[in-house]
Order: sequence, then structure tokens, then C-alpha cells
Amino acid sequence: MATGTLPLVVSRYKVPLTLFILIYTDILHCQQFIIPFKAPSNCSVDEFFDISSLSCVSCGPNQRRSTTGLSCICKTGYQTVITDKASITCQQCPTDKPAVTKGGFGCIRCPGSLSDEGECKCPQGNILVERDVNGNLLDEARCETCNGNAPALSVPNSSGARCERCQATFMNNSCVCDPPNVLAGGLCLPPGSLSTNVNPSVNYAQLKFSLQSAWFVKNLYSSSAACLVFSNLTACQALGNMCVMNMHSFSGVSTDACGLFNTIFRSKAALSSTQDISYWRGNLPWLYYGDEPGLASRVLQTDPVPIGFSFRGRNKNTDIKLLAAVYNVRGEFLRWESVGGGNLQLCPETTNKLAAAFSFGTAYKQSCDYSVEDLLHTHPEPLFYDVFMDLGGGENRKLLPLPTLVYNQQYNGRFINQESMKNWYLSRRMFLVDTLSGREKSTSRPKVIRVASSVKIRFQLVPRTQEGKVFPPLMIVTYRDIPISDSNSKTVSTTFAVEYEMDQNEARMKTDTALGVMGGVAVLYSLLKTVSWKRRIASPLIDAETMLKFMLFYAGDLANVFFTVTVGTGLYWLIFYKAQQFVSVLLPLPAQEEQFVTYIGCAFALKAVQFLHKLILQVSVDIFFIDWERPRSKTSRTVQATGESKREPSPVSIWRTYFVANEWNEIQTIRKISPTFQIMAVLFFLEVLGFSNLALRDPWPTLERLSQAYTPSHSLILRYGVAATLWLCIGLLQMIYFTVFHEHFVEDKIRQFVDLCSISNISMLLLSHRCFGYYIHGRSVHGHADTNMEEMNNNMKRESESLCGQRGLLPNTDTQTFQVSLTNRLRSQYDRIREPISRRSGPSRLIDAGSANQFEQNSRGYHTMNHFLGSIIDHAHPDMDYIVKDKLMFERVVGMEFLEPSEKSIFYNDEAHSFSDVLFYGNEATLLIFDTLFFCVVDLGSQSFVLAAVLTYVQQMIFRLIRNTFGRKNLVNKTLVDERFLI
Amino acid sequence: MATGTLPLVVSRYKVPLTLFILIYTDILHCQQFIIPFKAPSNCSVDEFFDISSLSCVSCGPNQRRSTTGLSCICKTGYQTVITDKASITCQQCPTDKPAVTKGGFGCIRCPGSLSDEGECKCPQGNILVERDVNGNLLDEARCETCNGNAPALSVPNSSGARCERCQATFMNNSCVCDPPNVLAGGLCLPPGSLSTNVNPSVNYAQLKFSLQSAWFVKNLYSSSAACLVFSNLTACQALGNMCVMNMHSFSGVSTDACGLFNTIFRSKAALSSTQDISYWRGNLPWLYYGDEPGLASRVLQTDPVPIGFSFRGRNKNTDIKLLAAVYNVRGEFLRWESVGGGNLQLCPETTNKLAAAFSFGTAYKQSCDYSVEDLLHTHPEPLFYDVFMDLGGGENRKLLPLPTLVYNQQYNGRFINQESMKNWYLSRRMFLVDTLSGREKSTSRPKVIRVASSVKIRFQLVPRTQEGKVFPPLMIVTYRDIPISDSNSKTVSTTFAVEYEMDQNEARMKTDTALGVMGGVAVLYSLLKTVSWKRRIASPLIDAETMLKFMLFYAGDLANVFFTVTVGTGLYWLIFYKAQQFVSVLLPLPAQEEQFVTYIGCAFALKAVQFLHKLILQVSVDIFFIDWERPRSKTSRTVQATGESKREPSPVSIWRTYFVANEWNEIQTIRKISPTFQIMAVLFFLEVLGFSNLALRDPWPTLERLSQAYTPSHSLILRYGVAATLWLCIGLLQMIYFTVFHEHFVEDKIRQFVDLCSISNISMLLLSHRCFGYYIHGRSVHGHADTNMEEMNNNMKRESESLCGQRGLLPNTDTQTFQVSLTNRLRSQYDRIREPISRRSGPSRLIDAGSANQFEQNSRGYHTMNHFLGSIIDHAHPDMDYIVKDKLMFERVVGMEFLEPSEKSIFYNDEAHSFSDVLFYGNEATLLIFDTLFFCVVDLGSQSFVLAAVLTYVQQMIFRLIRNTFGRKNLVNKTLVDERFLI
Repeated sequence: MATGTLPLVVSRYKVPLTLFILIYTDILHCQQFIIPFKAPSNCSVDEFFDISSLSCVSCGPNQRRSTTGLSCICKTGYQTVITDKASITCQQCPTDKPAVTKGGFGCIRCPGSLSDEGECKCPQGNILVERDVNGNLLDEARCETCNGNAPALSVPNSSGARCERCQATFMNNSCVCDPPNVLAGGLCLPPGSLSTNVNPSVNYAQLKFSLQSAWFVKNLYSSSAACLVFSNLTACQALGNMCVMNMHSFSGVSTDACGLFNTIFRSKAALSSTQDISYWRGNLPWLYYGDEPGLASRVLQTDPVPIGFSFRGRNKNTDIKLLAAVYNVRGEFLRWESVGGGNLQLCPETTNKLAAAFSFGTAYKQSCDYSVEDLLHTHPEPLFYDVFMDLGGGENRKLLPLPTLVYNQQYNGRFINQESMKNWYLSRRMFLVDTLSGREKSTSRPKVIRVASSVKIRFQLVPRTQEGKVFPPLMIVTYRDIPISDSNSKTVSTTFAVEYEMDQNEARMKTDTALGVMGGVAVLYSLLKTVSWKRRIASPLIDAETMLKFMLFYAGDLANVFFTVTVGTGLYWLIFYKAQQFVSVLLPLPAQEEQFVTYIGCAFALKAVQFLHKLILQVSVDIFFIDWERPRSKTSRTVQATGESKREPSPVSIWRTYFVANEWNEIQTIRKISPTFQIMAVLFFLEVLGFSNLALRDPWPTLERLSQAYTPSHSLILRYGVAATLWLCIGLLQMIYFTVFHEHFVEDKIRQFVDLCSISNISMLLLSHRCFGYYIHGRSVHGHADTNMEEMNNNMKRESESLCGQRGLLPNTDTQTFQVSLTNRLRSQYDRIREPISRRSGPSRLIDAGSANQFEQNSRGYHTMNHFLGSIIDHAHPDMDYIVKDKLMFERVVGMEFLEPSEKSIFYNDEAHSFSDVLFYGNEATLLIFDTLFFCVVDLGSQSFVLAAVLTYVQQMIFRLIRNTFGRKNLVNKTLVDERFLI
Repeated sequence: MATGTLPLVVSRYKVPLTLFILIYTDILHCQQFIIPFKAPSNCSVDEFFDISSLSCVSCGPNQRRSTTGLSCICKTGYQTVITDKASITCQQCPTDKPAVTKGGFGCIRCPGSLSDEGECKCPQGNILVERDVNGNLLDEARCETCNGNAPALSVPNSSGARCERCQATFMNNSCVCDPPNVLAGGLCLPPGSLSTNVNPSVNYAQLKFSLQSAWFVKNLYSSSAACLVFSNLTACQALGNMCVMNMHSFSGVSTDACGLFNTIFRSKAALSSTQDISYWRGNLPWLYYGDEPGLASRVLQTDPVPIGFSFRGRNKNTDIKLLAAVYNVRGEFLRWESVGGGNLQLCPETTNKLAAAFSFGTAYKQSCDYSVEDLLHTHPEPLFYDVFMDLGGGENRKLLPLPTLVYNQQYNGRFINQESMKNWYLSRRMFLVDTLSGREKSTSRPKVIRVASSVKIRFQLVPRTQEGKVFPPLMIVTYRDIPISDSNSKTVSTTFAVEYEMDQNEARMKTDTALGVMGGVAVLYSLLKTVSWKRRIASPLIDAETMLKFMLFYAGDLANVFFTVTVGTGLYWLIFYKAQQFVSVLLPLPAQEEQFVTYIGCAFALKAVQFLHKLILQVSVDIFFIDWERPRSKTSRTVQATGESKREPSPVSIWRTYFVANEWNEIQTIRKISPTFQIMAVLFFLEVLGFSNLALRDPWPTLERLSQAYTPSHSLILRYGVAATLWLCIGLLQMIYFTVFHEHFVEDKIRQFVDLCSISNISMLLLSHRCFGYYIHGRSVHGHADTNMEEMNNNMKRESESLCGQRGLLPNTDTQTFQVSLTNRLRSQYDRIREPISRRSGPSRLIDAGSANQFEQNSRGYHTMNHFLGSIIDHAHPDMDYIVKDKLMFERVVGMEFLEPSEKSIFYNDEAHSFSDVLFYGNEATLLIFDTLFFCVVDLGSQSFVLAAVLTYVQQMIFRLIRNTFGRKNLVNKTLVDERFLI
């Protein structure tokens, strides 16, 4: 524009702006660039649609709009005259030449009548001649007949303007198909070749009706006959396609498409079979495998495909190359098409997502709802696919035909392909969308369309293969009939899936064997535990309680067995599936995972029983704090002699007991790991670092996936494997950190508690069973602990400088912690003393203080117990004496004492602080496994790691609260320490 | 098959199985259904491709394969003979009739030479006549000339078999285009209408080369001339399309497509403009808006579209209805097409995802990589779209043309559309893929293809609209030139986006105003705090430290201001965008969110400064525990008189102090909420319940989204709004739960600590500033607390029965907690006593006990301090006396004392336990806001709530650890309690 040559040009930016603004603001403000909508159909008969202005414009005089509506043509009886080489005018034809020629530019006289368009009309079978051979327009048009006899053999062409040679199937002598020959589908068929009594109806079993299909009416007989008589290749294919459109179904009569196909198939038995395949006969398409029972399993499970799949390494081969021979509905071969990129997948997707379907090992499933209206537009005619697997091989490329299982195929009314594999009737060739056979007239809308609503390709691994061999893949097609009503919004859901499976019986057997063996061992171990427990409660009888205990122990051990087996299985699949080079295992299908999920459920339920059992035991242990401190005033008692002051010595402060009890209360729920950190770390690994991607059903062990890539579904087994392994690993790492680093260099709560006992001059007796428990020896080496800061500091200084004795129970030993096996007598005495205070004691509120009587009784009981236990430890009761010994190695391992404490109680040295068994601290394994199972069970149920993490946190919180609350109540009851000091 | 009629039929299941197995196992085991791959192109010249057996089959004698390769035809010189009506044989033509007729069925003599195919050949301009008018084959073919003169006006048709009327643009008298007329593109053009010197090259500016396009060579001149001379509608459109293929660009010369278009455009100035739009002239397509500077903004920002969008309610209207007039490259109008379902979106997607693009308010962006090879197949010719917005209106449907901005459009070498809006040159009509203009020969592969790599539709809301009015949407198209090399794997990335924006200046101004006003108030508040602080440290000077303190206070207050403003803004958008009925606000675009993110960053940084400041203050407070217990032996001292026992009274046990110190150590980091539960709850709401979906850029306030539906991107502002609001709400709910329910009915750690002080007969003095702090009065009402269990229980019982005095400092009051303002003198005395022990004291290990000297000094210091503070409280120092009073309401509010403690120290009653200000407990607001900001900042950076949750947990853990460690160290240093008891 700026460089134009016409004088009118206004150059950009060079004309004063104000002028522009004057002009254009004016334009802009009175108009708003809004135009009315007009389509060609909106224009009236004497208007045409101007494609430039998108509006209807009137035609000139004597004109009307053309059929497209985009231009004007002359009215009937008017000839077209070109003026100034572009526009037309119309001029009435003279009365002696009333008709217009074809094209409309000339006027002509007619030999006969005129058509509606004002052109000459010739009788049927004649041609209309308007020009001579040199193109000169005749004054009067001629109607000529075509010579149908040999050697001319001509008939009028489709436009009726010339004579052409007639179709080859007509008799050599004439272009007329005389009876008894049969004219069908434009072919002249000899008589008797095939009964003309064919059944051109299509049966819609799902909708329970059938209709006469226009396509079948027109083509079924002619195709069959041409195929049978002339061995016409496309006719045979077209017949086959009609059988496929009928979903390969045989009805009772043999006159439908598949019946005719089979009739012809049998009649060709004499010919040698094609490609050496006996189900494939000359000129015919290969539609069926044989119908012998059991053939399907022989085809599908006998010979492996001669290529091997491999996930990595030099021979990496994960490409599933499928080829399809594509035919149109008329039986013409269109092309070889490589399957992928959407030809079998109706759902629209990006290329790389579609391509994921053909990467071996990636479980693929893509579903979508497709608008029926769209289908009608995009698939006016069905295409037919013969699918092969490309085995490669360079020059001598080989193909393996894929057997197809048509799920809806009927065989005399039976859906045999929905029965067991023994009865399957495999076939070949499929289509995706058929909007043709459902039309009752060839131009009308179809009444029904048939869509392959599910196409599934199933690969089965050869058992025990090391080279990634598979059996011939099976293609399972399910068609759906959709009635077309007037509603446009109807959709049809379609699915394309690729599945991989292997025989899981071996794996299942191995799992079951492991379960059986380990379950047996667990019985023995639980028996041992029960025996040990019987010992520890010093009861020889086998009663219902014993049975119950056995069941409870067994629950725990069985839970461990289930847990071990499931984690092992999960890890097995994770490692073997994700890390294999040549494909040798494939993941179980979702349906095959059910047993595994049941096992996890069992493990969780049993573990929960064990956990609750332990929890109940822990909040009901017997505890007593033995205060070794003796009143100070004793020393001065020797000096003074008044009985009063003797009776009122300076009381021993209870605060040390409070302190120790308070600490014990606090360490009840500490654990060897930080449970919240555990949850957070697992969540971090799974959701942020992407470990959850390891659970996808594909063979790639990568953590990061591109957002554009296809994401397969999750495998429950892998999900469990990843989550449980991660949970256990992080738990173990935490335990190692805490036991190796934290407890040595930062803080060891258990050790601190033992030290505190020693410093505060308080021992602790803990009876977890009737006659078994733990003893922490806390007698101060300084004699007194109830003292002021100076002395405390001095004491500790002296101890650090080894100026005083050692802390152990036995002289010159350091062992402060013991497992104790009490004699029955000792326990009875203990119970006797406890009896008066074992009633619910200890006020829980500052205001409400309980009865004074109970107070006193408690107090007395406390002192008696303190004195009694102190004297026991001091060997003051010869009849309830004890000995100290080491536990045997074997005793430690099986967790049971061999010696029965009949005469003397036995104190076993226990450097390992095994008293923590009555705390959360000593049961980390149980807790960790319980948490793991809880996390995994929630995840398996909800498929959400975040929800699992949140619920696991809530679970931990609740159980910690329960343990703390009941543990504190127990402590109050058993040690008589006021609850208000346990803060 | 089962119902067949032929005698050979073997019915299913009826023949003995063994027979079958014999036959078929044999077949199965010697063959494996593998066929060689053959395509029609693999067959040799005398083979055809058998579409039934998919193999190459030899042709009969004298035959060769047809061009498609799917059948055999006779060799040259052989006529086709039909035998048994289906198969053909070939028979050599007799020597007197050496040529075969068209179709091949007859032999004929030729008037001239033979063609390569063995048929007769006539000279150019002649037609070949083989049959007479009745279809009889002639013995000898004839070559006839067509009469080109009027009135016959005939030329040979394309197949050379008939004479037909010649094209209308030729002279009326003859079918020859004589000079000076110009023959171009099949048209005969009059001379002088247009210079034949046109430039048919296409310029690829991105690739820095241009090429002579075959399409332009063939059509540019003829289209231009036909458009100019004949006003041919399709020619004009075709010319316009060529200009569009040149991306609307003008080069310096006016002989390229757009130059020619403009020349013609200007020459039509005399005609009235089409549809009253001055840029749209008769017969021409509308390609350009005017090139006046500033026109773009007038078009785009003056008049709103006359429809309103509404998100809900009766008038719900979110459908953006776009219509496109579609033209092919030859300028033919194809149809009106409704935009959607993939016509402008190249990326394949399911229908409902594609449809989301045209739901108003849903920010849509879909990108994908499209294979170039696919594009070549699917888009052999470009289609051109004139896009309109459908304004509806029933019968009188109106359309609004969408202005288009071609990003790559050049104007004399300048990319004006990449400059500011003032210079924009709007246009109309676009294409998606052009594989045509890049061909140098019409049949070759293109050298370059041009793809619309980005199509963006931008809606702009009318400012302050209440009815959802928008300005005319702008379509921004960016083309990309892709050179086609031999590599097949090349892809091109394409994007389709719909954006919604509104003028954010007003919102920004409001935000900035709020910031300014609140920032000013914050200055005042910080000044007040600084003054208060100066008072409390009793220093009147304004020094550098004062300035620093002011800055620190100001950081905290400014952080609060930023936080308030950002949360307010987030909530504003969340509520107003998601809940509006008629559209009145639209979200800021990602680019417009930067300022907001900066504000959040400021808030976080400033809050971190405040938090660290508080942390440092908290771990450096002065603490002392005053033990009121006096030795018991005092009572007996009156009885006994020996000086020795007088000097050695029964020591007061330090254990109560240990207990209190231990508890204090434990409550240092407790909070008013459970921080881990907070994280878990927020995560649960966001990720499990789907609150994160509220942050999607669409107007739907629903939590659940279907997986098949389109998921728009997240808005940072909404993400922040949702996360921060959720965090604050859950935090507040937790605080309400803990303060209203938990502390009253379960456990109140702060209250417990005060009670413990009272029961243990220990007071606590806490100096957070030099002359300001807190005092917890813990003098036991029973006189002694260092006693045994009985007495403890008795004491508590008596107290609960109100048999003893009240716990308050003043007689008959209950107030145990005070804020204290100390006099300078008192503090100096305090410091004097502390001085010897303020060196690093307290051994940290049991073994290593420090020097004895330090020990003693500490001990002495402790006792002196204990005594001194005890006597102060007991009013034993008249010169350092104190008074107790209530704080004024206003003093409480501003957090500052009006009275200066010059003579007497002042103890303010403080029932609210404000001593918790030196614990995490009393700073919940700061901690909660800091956590919120930390969570949000991590999330904004990583777009992952899970990562934010994990890191927030780690952050809390670390700061809790720091606070605990340093707090404990401080406690040890200040109270002289051995660290080993703080467990």
C-alpha cells in the first residue's frame, strides 16, 4: 500500500493524524462491525450467496440461483450469454429452438419432449446428440440407440451422451441379460449358480430387532454370486465384509452373509489353500479359524511368536509392530497400513500417547466418549482391517496373522466366545464403525450404527521364557449397536486396550508354599511363646485362656508371615518386572491381584489384633517405685532422745518419686523412630520424588515421567511393593540413625531413665507377667539423693571421678537392669500387700480428693510395699531370696527361661534394657509393620498416598493418645503417684 | 457351516474328536500361520497382487500388471478377450488393426501413429473417434478437429474424445486467445489490465530465504487479473488467500500477493464498501483493518460486544460461539463451520476437552508436538478461516468479525505487530497448515511448510462491567516456517490458547493503597513498641541499637501488613472470581501475578526476620526459680542446741526445683495448635478433598473434577488464596478447640505449670527485658512442700476443701502470675549477684564435672540469689520494695507501661499468663503466619502442596530443635539446674 503506484495512495504515517482521526472515529462510532449471518440456504430462489461479502445478493433478470446457491444461472428456457467475458445475461430461446443445450449456452430443437430443466429428453436406452463430431451445434438434437450386439456391445453411458462398451459379465453377443440369466448388482449372472433366496437382513441382537439393510439388499446376492461364479476377488471380499458386518455370526439359516460365505468356502475345498493355511481358501478372505473345539487354545498357546521382546540392553525391542491390510466395504484393497496413530484407536490423542499402546509391557487403556454425530460424519463407510503382526526380517519380512475373538459372535444363537476358551471360535477381520449396514435406504440416515466399543489386544507370555517370547497375541473385539434416534447429543464410549499376561499359577503356588511353610513355623513359634507365657504366669494348666493366648500369639506370627510373603512378592514383581532385560515375567492383571490383596488384608487384620493385644498388656503392667531414701533425721536421732521427734523424722521427700514417675510417663510412647518424620519422608519419596511412578504398569524404572507421555494405570502389587519397601527402608534407616548416632551422641531416653533412677535413689519393679518382669536397680551409690544442689553436684562429681562404688545391684558391677523371674510365694506376698490399694485409687482432680480413708490405706500400702520390696532386694527375707545370673544365649533367642524359680527368684542380668518391651520403644518392629500395613491398606483402598499418610498420622495420634491415657491411669493406680504430677 | 447344504459338511461337534485332532494337530505343528509380507509394489511386472491371499500371483500369458498392481491387463498390442465371463485372455491384434481401442477390448486401425500404450494417437487439438454415434466400432479410427469458431466454439475435452464448448473468458468469436490478449491460468485476459510482472516468490523470513512457489507462479497473475478484470469472486478469494499465505506481509514491492491485493483494493474504492465496513470492498475478501496508527486500540477497546457472559443463574451464558467461513485455497467457499471440535485446534483431544476452550472464563491452553509427516498427509492443501463471533439472535443472527493479529506480519520489513499496540496492524483470515506454497513444483514435496504454531484468542473484560461485557476478542496467530528435510521424525509444536484478561490497574492501585495506609500505621505501631522496649530496658538514649530494634519491630509489623494484603487479595479473587454470577472480574494473567508473588516474598522474608528475632529473645531470657522451702530441722533446732547440727540442717531437697525446671523445659515449644496435625489437615483438604481444584483458572467452585474433563492451569493467586485461607482457618479452628475445649477439659500445660509452682513451693522470676519480666508466685500455702506422699496428699486435700489460705501473692487473692517492672536498683543488685555465675556454668556430661571452684561459686550464687529474691518478694528490702496493681486497659492494649518504676518496682496482676510470651505458646500468631507463609512460598515455587507440607514439617522440626536446645542451655545457665535433669 505504502509503495503503490496509483495516485490515490496515502502513505502510512505521512498524512496528518488529525485527518485520520476525524475520518475514522466517525466511522468507528457509527458502526460496530457487526454483520447479519447468512448462509447459502438462507438466500431466496432469485438470490445467490456472495462469498465475498457473505450476504445474499439478487440475481440478474431471468436468472435463478444454482444448486450450490453460490452463483446464478439462467431460468428454464433461457440461454446463457456471456457479456464482457465475465458476467452472464440470459436470453429467451427462440420458439423454434425451445430447449437449451447441456451447459446452457445454446438453444436447440428437440426430437422429443423437454425435461424439467428445459433440456431435450430421449427415451430410456437412447443417447442425446446435440453436437456433431467436430463440435458444431446441431439445429435439432437427435436421439440415437446404442448397438448392444456384438461386436459393438455398447450401452449409453451414465450421462446419456455417448455409447460405451457394456460390462464384461454380460453375454458376449449382446448387452442384454436375458433370462434365465439373472441381472444383479449390475452383473449378469448365469442361472442356478446360487439360489436367489438370500437373507439381506442385519440382526441387532443387543437391540432385539433386525432390519433389511439397503446395502445387503443391493449387494449380498450379487457379491455372493460373483464370488462363487466368477471368483471375483473384490466380490468375495465384499461378501466377507458383509459377514464381518454381521459380527461373524451364523444364524440358523445359511442364506445370510456368513452362511453364504461358508457355502462358498466349502465349495472351494478343492482348491489348494492359500499361503498353506487351511482356513484360507483361494480368492476368499480369511474370516474364520476352524470351529473344532479346543482349536483356540492350540492356536493361542502352542507355538510362540518367533521374536523376543527385551526391555533394555543392546537387543532392546519393545516395539509391537502391527500391520493391517485395509479393505473398503466394496471389497477393494486400499493399502497396507501400519497400526498405530489412531487407525484402530478411535479416541483422539497425541501421537506419542497413541504410540504408547504399542510399546511392549506398557499396559494401555484409553477410553473416551465419542459423539455419534461425529461418527456419522467421519465414518460414512466402514473400513475393514486384517491385522497382522510384523515379524520383521528385512527383505523376507514375515507376518503373523492376529487371531480375533469377536465377543458378540453368535453361533446358532449361542454367544460361544463369551464361554470358556474351549468353545471359542476365532476369526479374522474387524471394523471400527459401521454406519452403512443400518440404513434401510441407501441415502437415509442409518437406524442403527455398530461400533467396536472395545478393542483389546492381549499378549500372553510363554511360561518360563528367558527370551521374551510370547504366544500369538489375541485381539478381542466387542461391538455395540447404537440405535440412532433424533437426539444429537448421544455418545458412545469406546475403549482401546493392550494387555499383557502370563500364567500366574506358578507364582501363586510359590506364594502359597511359602505361606504354608512359614505358617507352620509360626505355629511352632507361637507354641513356644505360649509355653513361655505359661511359665511366666506360673500356671501349668491348659485352659481356655491358654488357647486364647495361643491364638493371639499366632495372630501376630501369622501376620508377620503374611507381611513377609506380601512384601516379598511385591518386591519380587518390582525388581523382576522393572529390572529385567529380556522379558521373563509380566505383571498379574488386576483380576489376578485379588488374592494378593486378600493376603494384605489378612496381614493387616492379624497385625491389628497383635497390636491391640500388646497395647492392652502394656497398659496393665504392674509397676512399683522403690524409694531407698531413708529419713535424714536418723543421724540426729542418736543425739536426741525425745520420742516425739523420733516419731516425726524429717519426712523423705516424695518429689524424686514424682520426678521418676513423670519421666516414666513421658517415655511410654517414645519410639525408636520419629513416626511423623517417617510419614513425611515416605510421602516425600512417593509423591515429590516420584517413586509412585515405579508402580505404573510399564517396564520403565524411571521416577520422572513427562506430562505429555501416556500414564498407564497403577498395579496394586507394585504400589504395595513400593510403599511397603519404602516405608520399611526409611524406618530401618531411622532406626539405625537413632540407635547408632542419636542415642550415642544426642539423647538416649531409656539410658537417661536408668541413670535418673540411680541418681534419684529409686528402683523400679515392673511385672509384665504374674511371675516375670523387670527390675531397674536405682539405689544411689551415695546413700542419699534427697539433698540440695551442692550435694547433688558433689555426688555426681565424685561419681564421675570414680570415687564411690558402682551402681550395680551386685557389688562392683554396673548392671542396673534385670529381668526377674519371681517365685510364686514372692508374688503372692506382693499381691497381698497390693490388695488393699488395688481398688480404684488416686484422685484425678485437684478439688475432688477422694475419701480420707482410702488415702490412708494407700499411704500405708505404699510404705509397706516400699519396705517389703526394699528388704527383698536387700536379701532380708531368706524365704524369698533371689539369685542373680546371666541368661543363656539360647534363652535370649527363644525368649523363655529354662529354670523355674521354685525356691529362689532369679534376676537375670539384662544390659539390653529389655524393660522397654512394656513401652512402645521396645516394640518398634510391631509398630512399624502395623503402620506400614495401615498405610498400604488405606492406599490400596483409596489409591491415594496422601490420604494414606494423613490417616496413618491420625491413627498414630489416636493410639498414642490411648496408650498415654491408659498408661498414665495404670501408673497412677499401681504406683500411687498422684496423676497431677504426671504432666 | 453347521447348516450347510453341500454333502461335504462336517457339523460342529458331531465328527469324532480324535479324527479332528489327528488332522489338525498335524496342520498345527508343521505350520505356524506365518506369511511373507508382500505389497503391490513388491510384485514384479508380470505379477499382480492377489488381494485375497495378499501375495503376488503371476499374470496369464501376454499379460502384465495394471497400474494399481491389483489386476492383470493385456500387454501393448494385445486385445482383451473375456472368457467364461470373468477371467480375461489376451489375443494379439491382427496386423491390419494393430492398435487396441480405449478400454482394450477391440482392435482398430489408426489414422496416424500409435501411442506407447498401443492406442491410436491424434495430433494436438484433435479428438480421436473410435466408435460411431451408435456405438459401433469403426474399422479405422478417425482424428477430427474441433470447430473453435462461433457459434460452435468447441475444443477437445480433457480425455481427447469429444468436442466441448470452450471457457467463457475466451472471445465470443473463437476459442483462441489471440495476442494481445494474455492466456493465464486457463483464462484469456484482455491486455493492459495488470502488469504481468508479478513476484510469485514466498518469503520465509524465519529461515532467511525465499522460493518461487509453484502455486504462486501458476495462479498469482491469473487470480489477480481475473479478480481485477472480471471481478471473479473465487479469483479474488484465491488472491486474498495467497496474501494470507504470505502472512499478510508487504514487502517493498507491490508485485507480491499482498501488494496486488492492495492495488486491487484501492482500485475498488469507488464501489460502496461491503456490509458498511470500509475495510471490506465488493468482491474482495476482507483481509486488513486500516493501517492508521492507533486503530487497533480503537477497534479492540472501544465498543463492547453486545452480549453478556454469566457464570450461573437463569441467564447462565458461558458458551463462546465462534463461526468460521471456510474457503479452500482456490477461493471457493466451502461452508460455515462452527469453531470447536478441532478445526482450529491441531492437537488431538477428546471432544469435551476441546469444548472446554470455548467455555468463557476457563483459561485454556493445549500444546502438542505434531509430526510433520502427518501434517503433510492430513493437510495437502490449506484451508482458510474467516472467524466470527456468533452473537445469536434467532432469526436475525448477528456475527462479529474477530480481528486477527498476525504476529509475524511484516510491514516493509518491520514486525509491527510485535511492537506496541499503537502500531498494530490488524487483519482477518488465517490458515492452520500450508504445505502448498512451499512447493517449487506442484507435485514435489514442499521445501518448507508453514504452520500456525500458536493460535490465541484473547478476551478483555470491559472495565467495571457488571454484566459480563467484553470487548471484541482478539485472535493472535503466530506462524512458523518448518524446512522439510529428509528426516521423517521431525515434529512441530502447536499451541491453542484462550486467555481472559481485565485491566488490573485498579486492583493494583487498591492493593498499593492498602499497603501504604497499613504500612503507615505499622510505622506508628513499631514506634510504640520501640518506646515500650526502651522503657523496659530502662534506657532513655536513642542509639544504633534502638534503630535496629525499630527496624526489627517494623519488619514484623510490615510482614503482617503484607500478609494481610496478600491474603485479602487472594481471598478477594477466590470469592469474586469463583462466586460471581455475571462476569465482573477476571483473574490476572500469569504475567500480572508477579507483583503479588513479590509481596508474598516480602511478607515471608520480613516474617522470618521477626521470627528469628523472637527466637533469639526467647532463648536469652533471664530465669530464676525461687525456692521457698526452708529446712525442716529449724523446728527441731529450738530443741537441740549443738552448734554442729545447727550448721548442718537437713538440706532442702533440690528435686522440686528439678521438677519445675524440667517442666519448664518441656513447655518451651508447646503451641496452641498441633503443628503436625495442622499440616496433615491442610494436606487432606487440599489434596484429598480437592480444595486445590479451587485454584484452577476456571470459574467453577467445585472441588471434584472429572478425569476426562479439561484441567486448566493453576492461578498462583488462587493457589495462595486457597492455601493460606485453609491454613489460617484450620489453625483458628485448632486454636478454638484447644483454648475452649482441650485446655478446659483435657489438659492445660500452662495452668499446670503455675499449679506445679504452687504445689512445689517454688516461685519463678522471668526477666525478658532488663527491667521487665514476669513473676509466677509459687509459695506453697502449706509452708512446706518437700515432704512425703501422705503429707502431699493431705495438703492437696486441704486445699481442695479450702481449709488453707489462697495461693495469691497478696493475701486472700488468687493471682499467682504477674508482669513485673523492676527498678533499676533492683536489677543492678540482681546483676551483681548473678555476675560470678554468669560465666558458662553447669556441666553437660555426667562424667565431666567441671572445676570445683566454679561449683562452689555457683552454689553460693544460687543461695544468695534465692535468698535475695525471696526477701524482695517478702518486702524485706525497703529500698527495693514493690507494689502490686492492675494494669490499665489501655496499657494492655498497647502493650506498654505508663508508670515508670523509679522508686518501687511494680507488679501488675496478670491473670492471662502472659509469661507464655517467652514461650512458643504465647507467640502462636507469629508462628502460624510464619508457617503459612513458608508453606505458601514453597508451594508457589514448586507447585506442589505435598513438597510444601514436607518442607514445612522439616522447618518446624528444625526450629523446634533449635528452640529446645538453646532454650535448655539458657535454662541451665540462668537457673543453675544441671542439664542432665532437663530430660
